[in-house]
Amino acid sequence: MADLNPVLTGRQPASADPVDIARALIRCPSVTPEEGGALAYLEPLLRAAGFVVHRVTLTSPDTPDVENLYARFGTKGPNLCFAGHTDVVPPGDAARWRFPPFEGVIHGGLLYGRGAVDMKGGVGAFIAAGLDFAMRHGGPDGEGAQAPGSISFLITGDEEGVAINGTEKLLRWLADRDERIEHCVLGEPSSRAVLGDMVKIGRRGSLSGTLTVHGKQGHVGYPHLAENPIPGLVRLLAGLQADVLDRGNDHFQASNLEVVSVDVANPAFNVIPAEATARFNIRFNDLWTPETLAAEIEQRLRTAAGNEVRWSVAFEARSSDSFLTAPGPFVELVVDAIADSTGQRPELSTTGGTSDARFIKDYCPVIEFGLVGSSMHAVDESTPVDEIQALTRVYAGIIARYFATFGR
Amino acid sequence: MADLNPVLTGRQPASADPVDIARALIRCPSVTPEEGGALAYLEPLLRAAGFVVHRVTLTSPDTPDVENLYARFGTKGPNLCFAGHTDVVPPGDAARWRFPPFEGVIHGGLLYGRGAVDMKGGVGAFIAAGLDFAMRHGGPDGEGAQAPGSISFLITGDEEGVAINGTEKLLRWLADRDERIEHCVLGEPSSRAVLGDMVKIGRRGSLSGTLTVHGKQGHVGYPHLAENPIPGLVRLLAGLQADVLDRGNDHFQASNLEVVSVDVANPAFNVIPAEATARFNIRFNDLWTPETLAAEIEQRLRTAAGNEVRWSVAFEARSSDSFLTAPGPFVELVVDAIADSTGQRPELSTTGGTSDARFIKDYCPVIEFGLVGSSMHAVDESTPVDEIQALTRVYAGIIARYFATFGR
Ligand SMILES: [Zn+2]
Ligand SMILES: [Zn+2]
Repeated sequence: MADLNPVLTGRQPASADPVDIARALIRCPSVTPEEGGALAYLEPLLRAAGFVVHRVTLTSPDTPDVENLYARFGTKGPNLCFAGHTDVVPPGDAARWRFPPFEGVIHGGLLYGRGAVDMKGGVGAFIAAGLDFAMRHGGPDGEGAQAPGSISFLITGDEEGVAINGTEKLLRWLADRDERIEHCVLGEPSSRAVLGDMVKIGRRGSLSGTLTVHGKQGHVGYPHLAENPIPGLVRLLAGLQADVLDRGNDHFQASNLEVVSVDVANPAFNVIPAEATARFNIRFNDLWTPETLAAEIEQRLRTAAGNEVRWSVAFEARSSDSFLTAPGPFVELVVDAIADSTGQRPELSTTGGTSDARFIKDYCPVIEFGLVGSSMHAVDESTPVDEIQALTRVYAGIIARYFATFGR
Repeated sequence: MADLNPVLTGRQPASADPVDIARALIRCPSVTPEEGGALAYLEPLLRAAGFVVHRVTLTSPDTPDVENLYARFGTKGPNLCFAGHTDVVPPGDAARWRFPPFEGVIHGGLLYGRGAVDMKGGVGAFIAAGLDFAMRHGGPDGEGAQAPGSISFLITGDEEGVAINGTEKLLRWLADRDERIEHCVLGEPSSRAVLGDMVKIGRRGSLSGTLTVHGKQGHVGYPHLAENPIPGLVRLLAGLQADVLDRGNDHFQASNLEVVSVDVANPAFNVIPAEATARFNIRFNDLWTPETLAAEIEQRLRTAAGNEVRWSVAFEARSSDSFLTAPGPFVELVVDAIADSTGQRPELSTTGGTSDARFIKDYCPVIEFGLVGSSMHAVDESTPVDEIQALTRVYAGIIARYFATFGR
């Protein structure tokens, strides 16, 4: 593996190779919540380039301990942080992969492996761009004193898991130490069809809940002695989805409710069950807060139920609010850097699932930009090596434009 | 236990005591499909009274072997058969019972125990009535040659279970031996509030099925890439239940569809499931056959689905047709015997769940009459000892009127 790690072997290259870094990371089996050697690989690489590196193991009851990393080059502000994760989802049946999921095989111009897209490819790209910045501003000796600001990396091992011992706590750990981050780029795969077609400048919020309709158990032969909860559940679910929640706005698509499960688990055909439940999730825009949305859901259920259906609803504690990094100088410089390198003017999007940006937005403006995500979490996850190199140029462009705009 | 079994101890009583027989049966822990000693108790009792007794163990692949009993007194026709079962449902948590479920404690005029109502009380009553008939027509020596016909007992150990090695096969076994039954009284608890308020002269049919709506799995953040099957399921279930199936007729209440389960079993809040199912059961009257009803269900689903919902439905193989023992001399004599003994003119009903009458009706007219069923299958199942004795008088009255009407 020596050829994969030019910095460590002492053969200082003209510039760090993001594909080599991505391959080395793929070879670490860091299935969430395992560190898998990924952070241990990054630590000396960053130290050698003059970064101050913190390895932070975070713990909480009932969940596994998770290793995280924060590294910074430069002593002055502003501090531009690249955030990401080295944990990956499990590979599934490895026999179904064309190439082994933890070998980082390059074939036909594609780098194969679990995490190639989500997001060891992106981590490789921003680490390489950051190493170049460090080399140009003093490297291991100067420690960044001459740099126009700082570059930092916030890398968690708990993004694909429960996300309890990851970014959220690491940001609090940094804040407790008066470590300031002025702006953040999260390297999640944000591009849709080609690199640069989309950046995420916000995310919808997420609210989950469980609806229970209460009935009375009995025998199907004597329905008048029982109270079947299922017709009531059907009625409430129809009522819940009869109208749209909103039509979206300039930055957000319409809020969307999905019923993800209905459950009774009655194994008998001759028994009317006592209870029926439905579980739902809502992805909502900035026209709502979790509180106003919960109130709306309860109102819709009340209206649909009338006096005829006995029901209750419980919302999950871990809901997340929506957020928006409003267009302005930071968004503009990212868009310009993307357009310069890729020829694409990215769509400013707030679509898709949640990400660790939901934690970062409480500390500083955050934008998500990374590879094309289509093969993430799938068998044969892969990304063109060209795209990793192109992404590295975009990140380098963002760094240059960032300090031109905000640097001292 | 000697005092419970007067026939076996040689103290031939003036008449057999139905409560003693019921208590002895309750002391046999014949939880389906276990024989539990119940048939072994009845066999010598019946032989001693001049019955020819067959113990028939029925078997089929994948289900437990089950013991059954057929006994006949008399050699001529017509043959009036009393049918029932000695297997019982499990007692559940015995600690929740006021008295142990297999001891047959009598307290405050009530006989307590699993099966007191369903239907060891009824079996005790018809066995006692049959023993009396045998004693009056020759008893153990005469073997019924002077009787105006025959009395028989068809007692299964597989009524509360899968009902595969019980009444259905035992009837075929008898038919294969040219054993004829002209009429049948099934002793299931048919009375509703007081003994004699209801007889069952027919039963609705039963048809079960599973509806599956097919979708496409995906992430809740990207609903346009997935296809949630749950809204389709809600729509089909609403369509299935929008209209009544019928309004019933002179002898039958309206057919009724109950959705007994809806299932997805998706543990995640962020995943749109691939499939959703609903399980349903229909109790239907003689306006339908299983075939016409299945066609109606499929038509309703097709209409509700349009081209927008992908669905499939599978009906269970073990459906049962409805049947009716039309009012006539047999129904009349049973009603008259009930009215004579109880002062009640029973309602002629076809309501409730299925019973082994669904098998018997293929061989001869069948009527169901027995105890008040309210505590069946429950903790503290119990029946007044007076009611068992009153039921025995009704059965004796049915026997007398039967041979007065049909005897030779
Ligand atoms: Zn990711
Ligand atoms: Zn029964």
